Amino acid sequence: MNILILLDFAGVAVFAATGALAASRKQLDIVGFVFLACVTGIGGGTFRDLVLGHVPVTWVRNPEYLLICAATAVLLYFTAHMMESRYRILLWLDAVGLAAFCAMGAAVGLKATGSPAIAIVTGMATATFGGILRDVLAEEKSVLLRPEIYVSAAAAGSALYTIADAAGAVPGLSALLAMALAFAIRGGALIFGWTMPSYRARAGRNEAELLRDGIVSPPPGQSR
Amino acid sequence: MNILILLDFAGVAVFAATGALAASRKQLDIVGFVFLACVTGIGGGTFRDLVLGHVPVTWVRNPEYLLICAATAVLLYFTAHMMESRYRILLWLDAVGLAAFCAMGAAVGLKATGSPAIAIVTGMATATFGGILRDVLAEEKSVLLRPEIYVSAAAAGSALYTIADAAGAVPGLSALLAMALAFAIRGGALIFGWTMPSYRARAGRNEAELLRDGIVSPPPGQSR
Amino acid sequence: MNILILLDFAGVAVFAATGALAASRKQLDIVGFVFLACVTGIGGGTFRDLVLGHVPVTWVRNPEYLLICAATAVLLYFTAHMMESRYRILLWLDAVGLAAFCAMGAAVGLKATGSPAIAIVTGMATATFGGILRDVLAEEKSVLLRPEIYVSAAAAGSALYTIADAAGAVPGLSALLAMALAFAIRGGALIFGWTMPSYRARAGRNEAELLRDGIVSPPPGQSR
Repeated sequence: MNILILLDFAGVAVFAATGALAASRKQLDIVGFVFLACVTGIGGGTFRDLVLGHVPVTWVRNPEYLLICAATAVLLYFTAHMMESRYRILLWLDAVGLAAFCAMGAAVGLKATGSPAIAIVTGMATATFGGILRDVLAEEKSVLLRPEIYVSAAAAGSALYTIADAAGAVPGLSALLAMALAFAIRGGALIFGWTMPSYRARAGRNEAELLRDGIVSPPPGQSR
Repeated sequence: MNILILLDFAGVAVFAATGALAASRKQLDIVGFVFLACVTGIGGGTFRDLVLGHVPVTWVRNPEYLLICAATAVLLYFTAHMMESRYRILLWLDAVGLAAFCAMGAAVGLKATGSPAIAIVTGMATATFGGILRDVLAEEKSVLLRPEIYVSAAAAGSALYTIADAAGAVPGLSALLAMALAFAIRGGALIFGWTMPSYRARAGRNEAELLRDGIVSPPPGQSR
Repeated sequence: MNILILLDFAGVAVFAATGALAASRKQLDIVGFVFLACVTGIGGGTFRDLVLGHVPVTWVRNPEYLLICAATAVLLYFTAHMMESRYRILLWLDAVGLAAFCAMGAAVGLKATGSPAIAIVTGMATATFGGILRDVLAEEKSVLLRPEIYVSAAAAGSALYTIADAAGAVPGLSALLAMALAFAIRGGALIFGWTMPSYRARAGRNEAELLRDGIVSPPPGQSR
């Protein structure tokens, strides 16, 4: 599983970098950089470990994960201002991390449970939860709600991992195939604005419209 | 405990439906529907399992929970646009899920610990965390902060479960009583705008007022 | 470890009070007060217990933690309106809780793993996660993103705990030193607006500017 461990380290580092870039956009101090880098870098894996019952979680047993996050955060702290477009770089690093983590998460889930359905879900969760936590904590526009394909890329990569595994591929090969597919899909979405072919329902009414249309009640104390 | 398992499946399905409706309001793609449906449908139970130490969590041991969420999401994906008021339907399905899950959560908590206090808390948490996660991830107005009764309905249902259990009722009956009470309270709150009888303190000052009144400092680099 | 248990109770109570004050600012009802008080009071410790594999988590084994939160919430429910500046009081109580919890979290992490790196992280996480959860759920301006020193105070306290412990101090003394340092730093930040000495990169572009500068794509259906 050496290539999987490498993948995991790489995924942690690039997700940590996206957390540090979000910290830079919010002008946090160096400890804020380290904090957001850790949350983003190890958030997805922490969730995966918890639901599978792998405790103490990976980074408690292997503190080098924290060191990778911290080192990445310190590096970005001194270099983020040199980048022309931190948000674009954040999105691309997030795509690399998404690809690495959907393969890694699917591999761990499949090994732990033998269930392809669980493997796909742990792959998707590992790949997306770090970025979702980052966006919630940094009050960034959620990558989950952006129009281009995001979760779907992780789902496709995780699914390909389980298919390749069922077809007899070794974990390293399955992981590389899964990563390549997830990165190709997410990268295409970033470049070309790919969205899923879909019926596009109308957007939800906002709070003011819900009030006007009588769907929700006004707060007590106002005239009804 | 057959009726409890049925309740659990029903609660998962209706919460998954509220997640899918939130996805529809945000015009997500079909994988976004499935993602939000899963988070909302199994979020509360996941939290309950984790704090009680029931790992791997329920949906890892029984992947049919995921299939229920995914099937509900796909169904809603093709039908949500036919609904006149998705937000109102979301609130009512959320009420059904709240009622089912406060009974289920209290039953699991009581069985695991024997403590009524813990049972009430696991009931409340199971009933509300899925919806809270949905609102945070979909950037919807939080159901927790709406003026009408919400958490209180789950608290009342969970408390009734522990009382009925202490009075010697079988789990199925305790659960039905708890559900009926929680749904009656939350439903009444939705129809009539019920709020708890309460002293209503003034609202908090917002950030601009906090700055003006000198309660928080302006960001460095601005004149003080 | 008697002083550590006292610290823990004190930290839970003051964090619970900050949750209740946030509930007051949002004009929630009494169950909303209790809910936010519990989330804030036990959120950090719950995360710490989960990642270390200490399950059932502390408050499930010792329901008196819940009673402390609930009692604090009820007390604040009847007295919050008497306070002139609830937000300022919230920030100061949060500082007390941060100091108590970074010491407590570092002590638990060090005892469980023997690793100073893990102890610093569990100290920081225990000290900050309750407040972060409170701000996300109450839709308050995140204390994490405020300009003055916050996470750094918890990091410094946790680090001092591990240093004092390595130097042979008993847990109670290490904890008092850690608390004093963390509270001094955070208190100074609140009074004097202290920020970390730092290169201050430019703020991130917002969504409109990202669109204008071509860094993100417009939603499909609009002209490109």
